[in-house]
Amino acid sequence: MTDTSSVHLGPNQYGKAEVRLVRVTRDTDRHEIEDLTITTQLRGAALADSYTSGDNAKVLATDTQKNTVYAFAREHGVHSPEEFLLRLGRHFTTAFDWYEGATLTADQHGWARIPVDGRDHDHAFVRAGSGTRTAVVQVDGDDVHVLAGVTDLTVLKSTGSEFHGFPRDRYTTLAETDDRILATSVTARWRYLPEAVEAGIDWNATHAGVLERTLATFADLHSYALQQTLFAMGRAAIEAFPEIAEVRFSMPNKHHFLVDLAPFGLDNPNEVFYAADRPYGLISGSVVRDGVAEAPAAWTSVPGFV
Amino acid sequence: MTDTSSVHLGPNQYGKAEVRLVRVTRDTDRHEIEDLTITTQLRGAALADSYTSGDNAKVLATDTQKNTVYAFAREHGVHSPEEFLLRLGRHFTTAFDWYEGATLTADQHGWARIPVDGRDHDHAFVRAGSGTRTAVVQVDGDDVHVLAGVTDLTVLKSTGSEFHGFPRDRYTTLAETDDRILATSVTARWRYLPEAVEAGIDWNATHAGVLERTLATFADLHSYALQQTLFAMGRAAIEAFPEIAEVRFSMPNKHHFLVDLAPFGLDNPNEVFYAADRPYGLISGSVVRDGVAEAPAAWTSVPGFV
Amino acid sequence: MTDTSSVHLGPNQYGKAEVRLVRVTRDTDRHEIEDLTITTQLRGAALADSYTSGDNAKVLATDTQKNTVYAFAREHGVHSPEEFLLRLGRHFTTAFDWYEGATLTADQHGWARIPVDGRDHDHAFVRAGSGTRTAVVQVDGDDVHVLAGVTDLTVLKSTGSEFHGFPRDRYTTLAETDDRILATSVTARWRYLPEAVEAGIDWNATHAGVLERTLATFADLHSYALQQTLFAMGRAAIEAFPEIAEVRFSMPNKHHFLVDLAPFGLDNPNEVFYAADRPYGLISGSVVRDGVAEAPAAWTSVPGFV
Amino acid sequence: MTDTSSVHLGPNQYGKAEVRLVRVTRDTDRHEIEDLTITTQLRGAALADSYTSGDNAKVLATDTQKNTVYAFAREHGVHSPEEFLLRLGRHFTTAFDWYEGATLTADQHGWARIPVDGRDHDHAFVRAGSGTRTAVVQVDGDDVHVLAGVTDLTVLKSTGSEFHGFPRDRYTTLAETDDRILATSVTARWRYLPEAVEAGIDWNATHAGVLERTLATFADLHSYALQQTLFAMGRAAIEAFPEIAEVRFSMPNKHHFLVDLAPFGLDNPNEVFYAADRPYGLISGSVVRDGVAEAPAAWTSVPGFV
Repeated sequence: MTDTSSVHLGPNQYGKAEVRLVRVTRDTDRHEIEDLTITTQLRGAALADSYTSGDNAKVLATDTQKNTVYAFAREHGVHSPEEFLLRLGRHFTTAFDWYEGATLTADQHGWARIPVDGRDHDHAFVRAGSGTRTAVVQVDGDDVHVLAGVTDLTVLKSTGSEFHGFPRDRYTTLAETDDRILATSVTARWRYLPEAVEAGIDWNATHAGVLERTLATFADLHSYALQQTLFAMGRAAIEAFPEIAEVRFSMPNKHHFLVDLAPFGLDNPNEVFYAADRPYGLISGSVVRDGVAEAPAAWTSVPGFV
Repeated sequence: MTDTSSVHLGPNQYGKAEVRLVRVTRDTDRHEIEDLTITTQLRGAALADSYTSGDNAKVLATDTQKNTVYAFAREHGVHSPEEFLLRLGRHFTTAFDWYEGATLTADQHGWARIPVDGRDHDHAFVRAGSGTRTAVVQVDGDDVHVLAGVTDLTVLKSTGSEFHGFPRDRYTTLAETDDRILATSVTARWRYLPEAVEAGIDWNATHAGVLERTLATFADLHSYALQQTLFAMGRAAIEAFPEIAEVRFSMPNKHHFLVDLAPFGLDNPNEVFYAADRPYGLISGSVVRDGVAEAPAAWTSVPGFV
Repeated sequence: MTDTSSVHLGPNQYGKAEVRLVRVTRDTDRHEIEDLTITTQLRGAALADSYTSGDNAKVLATDTQKNTVYAFAREHGVHSPEEFLLRLGRHFTTAFDWYEGATLTADQHGWARIPVDGRDHDHAFVRAGSGTRTAVVQVDGDDVHVLAGVTDLTVLKSTGSEFHGFPRDRYTTLAETDDRILATSVTARWRYLPEAVEAGIDWNATHAGVLERTLATFADLHSYALQQTLFAMGRAAIEAFPEIAEVRFSMPNKHHFLVDLAPFGLDNPNEVFYAADRPYGLISGSVVRDGVAEAPAAWTSVPGFV
Repeated sequence: MTDTSSVHLGPNQYGKAEVRLVRVTRDTDRHEIEDLTITTQLRGAALADSYTSGDNAKVLATDTQKNTVYAFAREHGVHSPEEFLLRLGRHFTTAFDWYEGATLTADQHGWARIPVDGRDHDHAFVRAGSGTRTAVVQVDGDDVHVLAGVTDLTVLKSTGSEFHGFPRDRYTTLAETDDRILATSVTARWRYLPEAVEAGIDWNATHAGVLERTLATFADLHSYALQQTLFAMGRAAIEAFPEIAEVRFSMPNKHHFLVDLAPFGLDNPNEVFYAADRPYGLISGSVVRDGVAEAPAAWTSVPGFV
């Protein structure tokens, strides 16, 4: 006979993943389009029965969660991923008093207007390319946390990057370099200060501003390590936007190896490179504003960071 | 005992696939970057021995093909994928007289300069987003064909698309619509007239021009079928550029389904959509300039078309 | 004004791609499961109006094609991908007399029963791993062609493979080897003789038999080139199964590079390898039974081959 | 002037990701093959200088980490991913006294011998299919944690699954069901008790045993919720293996929707299903042995769990 007393349920959550929502705002002939992939995850002690005995009395169906996403898009609009997730999070945790926490995430896919004869078209769009905007809203009892971010933002510097001074052991063969290609695909998430969230944030403008500051820092900083570039990017965001408490990055070092052309009687003055797939360096780090309280609950089940 | 006389070798080719080449032009402080993924494929009757008996005397190693790509990037530069592939194709089929044909393909990955304080940076770039430029060069004995193209160019119209008048049988449930979202991810390849190739083509300017014309046509045409849009896009390219003989398209119909919000007491006046993954419509077609000769050899082993 | 007389419609087809069908046969407690991804593509001169003027009178909606797949799965069962596609192809080209041709493809995803206490379970399955079974049915007027196949069948030999005797030019640096890892991911398609299709083929048994013969040949042949292995695999299939007219392969040479451990004071007697992603060799080839008629229509729009 | 005192470095780590290692053991003619993708991540307070000032004096190059993986594979063999990662983790944190912690992960790709004439071949293999074995070793000062696991283990039950009794609100439209397909792709990780790690574990046999027990539980349990199945699978593993402290799961509910065939005059007695891609339910949960101490450090930067 099974001794069911030997185990208990640990951390858990459930929900609907990757709900694809496209909302068209057509109040005028000049349409707006919002394109998101949304995941909702709910948790609470009352859900234990579903795990331990298959009792679904407190399990709001994931299909219902999906329906709610679509209904809210009609009733309230999207406006920004942060605002939309906040509304969803408040709904699930207040309409059903047994949900003590929720993690809501969104990827927003960018679209640009197609130019026709020098004018941007009213209702025709082409997918924009530079990275995917992300958002996370965490509800944790009475606390609410908002993380904005970006992923798959691929950037490259063709000079202005060195790497030397690292320790050498028996297994070290890498040559030092004072001029290399530095390339990465930035995943960044920044946490807004709870008091700023409460006071209200211009989510779209702030997001654009953070991207602009971090990209400019990547471009301008003469880099001695991808770690240094990462830290400077986070510092630039925090210094420019008082709403931001901390920034976390995960940045692969997308190696571009100088091809050895000497066997063919050719030199290679930093011109011809092989862009490697795997393995790659992987640099993670966070930059924190001095004096702000830590908020580990804000990062619950957010992948890809320390 | 095995009866080896019972079979013979049919069509074949071999080569190196997906050579990742990044070339930096740094003649001045304002760097240029060319980023390509290149595949070389060679063929010829003399290669039969490698298949039938493992005799490699006529098999230029695929590793050598890769080396040649990198060496040529240093010796000659890239300039455009078409020009670079032409040079590679001529080399392989003349340096080794047993290669009767070759298929060379390239994807070119776009980069844009990072703006810093209103100026485009000299040596810092962000990956551009709207589609990947493609090129194919076919060498077939004395004939040379050049296909330019684009793939993964995702576009969407939020209105200006209808679909009705289709036949209804026992299995038809689809409702007619006079206003739907039309979205697709364009894969297009256009063949240049051999005489235009010989006379010389401004590859980069023509490529940009074709994209501009086809995107504008997608945007402006009031569409009754994705087929109609496809044909109009091809016609626009051919009419604008006398160098083009034909255009082939493969265009998935990326369905955006209007969500039924009636169960929630809500209407949905073409505002809230579910973007589906699979299945999807798939429309292929080609538009051909009147009077030009067909060139099936130009399309050898080019995937994704009729 | 647009000169519409300047262009005409070339080759074209349209349909529904990647219809995901899972069929459970539950006549007894021991269930059977068939899991397929199906694409239907139709063509015919009467479809030109949809391209040139957006007239859909002859355009069976791709949604209807999808519905037909599901209805036929209920009415007739699947039995094998070849039989199911043949039934669909005959339906579309006879129920609507304007369809002159059709390409129907299927991927079949394998499932194995979960073993419980030494017995295979009646209705619980785990996804099987070794490759995906594929099928193509081509209807071309009165002709019908059937291609069976497999893709993503990854195999590796840790010895029994050499590569030497290849020509050396200015760009050749590759060392010769008499013992290397040979690894590939097999994509194969074999065409059945039209008279065998008409007479009837045990599709499932023949498919299993071809896989068994080709895998055994990969394993047993001492290889001097991947080309040689490819040809022997095709010959083995054709010699074992008189129903088969030809076999086409696309086989990447998945390079496993011996790691140079000398800098660490270690030898490496063919033990430690780096499995590279890109670039890779790509070997394509076909093996044809002597005396059979060619059938180019069988290969219309089938990607990945010469 | 930039106020650099306003921010500080938070959690961070760096290393080499996705080192592809294939090791052949060829002591006899019957070869063994081990195929892994390995990631090493190191951390320690002394690394702060690399972030804040680009000083790399304490930054063991990620290239060196990669070299160490290959050298250790030659010097010590692999034996199991857990043993190999433990050796790497001990090396990095003892050879360099400034590394206070490390996260080492591996995916092990399975290979089965190719059967030839009823015998398993000595040195020819085919990629095995059912899930990828995973391992994580965490070094956290003097503590060492080992997580074993599996990912992409796709399973399906064609009956024996119900879902009803869930709450209904304004947005609920889902029908209750007492017979549905239950399908998921299991990602599981189990933590071994530190004292068991110290005493020594038969890593390979235990891994196989856990898979066998959890798969059998998936198959045998009559399920009222995927949550219930998840919990029972974890309980089965913990009850069978005293070495295990806890099991965490992330299990998508891969929806198989019964196709409505009524418009075509057909019934559908649980036979014909549409396998959907997105959205999907996502169920996460952990099962913990009573009385064991929590070990949050064991789960640092392990993605995909609560």
